[in-house]
Amino acid sequence: MKASAIANANIALVKYWGKRNKELMLPNNGSISMTTAGLNAHTTVEFDEKYKEDILILNGKEYKKGMEEYDDYVGKFLSVVRQNYDVNLRCKIVSNNNFPTAAGLASSAAGFAALAVAVNEALQLGLDKKELSMLARRGSGSATRSIYGGFVEWKRGSREDGTDSYAEQIAKPEYWPEFRMVVCVTTKEAKKIKSRAGMAQTVKTSPMYKAWLETVDEDLRAVREGILKRDFTLVGQTAEHNCLKMHATMITTKPSIIYWNAGTMDIIHAVLEWRDEGLECYFTIDAGPQVKILCLEKDAKEIAERVKEFPHVEDVIITYPGEDAKVVDKHLF
Amino acid sequence: MKASAIANANIALVKYWGKRNKELMLPNNGSISMTTAGLNAHTTVEFDEKYKEDILILNGKEYKKGMEEYDDYVGKFLSVVRQNYDVNLRCKIVSNNNFPTAAGLASSAAGFAALAVAVNEALQLGLDKKELSMLARRGSGSATRSIYGGFVEWKRGSREDGTDSYAEQIAKPEYWPEFRMVVCVTTKEAKKIKSRAGMAQTVKTSPMYKAWLETVDEDLRAVREGILKRDFTLVGQTAEHNCLKMHATMITTKPSIIYWNAGTMDIIHAVLEWRDEGLECYFTIDAGPQVKILCLEKDAKEIAERVKEFPHVEDVIITYPGEDAKVVDKHLF
Repeated sequence: MKASAIANANIALVKYWGKRNKELMLPNNGSISMTTAGLNAHTTVEFDEKYKEDILILNGKEYKKGMEEYDDYVGKFLSVVRQNYDVNLRCKIVSNNNFPTAAGLASSAAGFAALAVAVNEALQLGLDKKELSMLARRGSGSATRSIYGGFVEWKRGSREDGTDSYAEQIAKPEYWPEFRMVVCVTTKEAKKIKSRAGMAQTVKTSPMYKAWLETVDEDLRAVREGILKRDFTLVGQTAEHNCLKMHATMITTKPSIIYWNAGTMDIIHAVLEWRDEGLECYFTIDAGPQVKILCLEKDAKEIAERVKEFPHVEDVIITYPGEDAKVVDKHLF
Repeated sequence: MKASAIANANIALVKYWGKRNKELMLPNNGSISMTTAGLNAHTTVEFDEKYKEDILILNGKEYKKGMEEYDDYVGKFLSVVRQNYDVNLRCKIVSNNNFPTAAGLASSAAGFAALAVAVNEALQLGLDKKELSMLARRGSGSATRSIYGGFVEWKRGSREDGTDSYAEQIAKPEYWPEFRMVVCVTTKEAKKIKSRAGMAQTVKTSPMYKAWLETVDEDLRAVREGILKRDFTLVGQTAEHNCLKMHATMITTKPSIIYWNAGTMDIIHAVLEWRDEGLECYFTIDAGPQVKILCLEKDAKEIAERVKEFPHVEDVIITYPGEDAKVVDKHLF
């Protein structure tokens, strides 16, 4: 009843922003991401009678029932597991991310994808990848996509019960191995407004949200086509504009949600300038200040060298299409 | 046939972004501004047979026919004057701004308001303020508002000929003398994308523009009410959100128009933080990186002292509701 798994984070090229069902974690729009090699969560779970209550140790810090960060996330997820698969045992979870948590680097995506895979193995539930993606979804929307490697689409679905809202792989990592993201960490602080609360507020109050929803299907179509044709310009242009549309809905939320900081702006302008000069790259930004620069392998090192010089940049990581989430032998306890 | 005028710039609380008629300079939406004391243009114009061609000397630099910056602005304006008032003489214009040009501080608003008033005096056209505001409009949309002091609304109007698109004063400067704007100059460089080209591109390509237009009337109503009741919270909250909506349409323009820089972001976040701490202030940002912080007289010095400490801030100016544009005796040549 003990298993471990590793799952990579993912960075969306077409963003997920807003839910149609909070309980089932169903999105208002489909999304597409690249699974990020090397940015992962390693998670061990053990279900056993010896545990009198569930316990989570995330990056060395203990969380349990009664703590908001626990109840709203892992607590909810474990309730879903117990309800759906008739599990009564309590468990211990130990999870470590190898990158900053809660700063717009989709740590919850990696964490819940790894947890879903580990729980499936520990309890021998026999879920396939599609089912795993739906289970991961109950922990964190973007975790849906981290079950697969490469380029992944999370289908919006239309059913009320969520059974058609799962991830599908568009292309394996080896289909486009030259694709790169240069992750520029402009702060390691946890963000003040969590994605979950932020998107709910946007759906409720942003006058721009309707336009977001109306245009996202066209972005999905373009990015899907761009990936399949390995058309970097099409993917980059669409992803950058899609990110700006999401941030437009964020900043016009009441009260406004402004994730960009000084470091974000420096890199945005640098990317625009470098592109003018012929160095093809695009930016995307999630619910945090970090900027991810999309480029091809041939330019990744040059771009990483350049951004390292920026005053607000604390860390630079080059990532590329990573593998599926998987069970591993190495336990964390 | 020679006259001089001074007009203050203005800073919009409800922004003007997008034209319904480019030739007549008619806006897609109404706007409200505060006329800014101390940020002004001083303009002298002389019509005389001795001039063989029109000449403009703006901040010491000469412009004439054939130069884009001249033809699209002062050149067009003078054509309107000649056509509407049957003037054949050529003229010389000398104009000086006491603040950075073309960096989002509405230098064209002050310049064209002063020019309209000076031309009216030099040619003895006998225009009243409403007519002056419509003449100034032909030079620069926001100049419409700089004819009046205090708090001013530029009516969208609905007529195709523009005869109902003019400025009206909501309140004189002495009605709310405690109102302050702390202008934080984060760069003195001229902006890369001029407002005129930027707004045309937004109207054409931003998926968010429709939502902008649909919500601006409610902002106008709220700011008008806020000014008349001297309700600083209502004015500030509405102005800040209106500014964010305009920037949402800008960043989602294709290609995107991103006026914010690192200095802009630092001040945005500082304002949000200070407000959380109980120092009531709001930000507004035009088509440029400068941030204008709205506050009351009692807090203006404290805020100015704080922003002076910011690394990207090159200059800080405190302004308050200024006077109407007016004829002055002092000629510049």
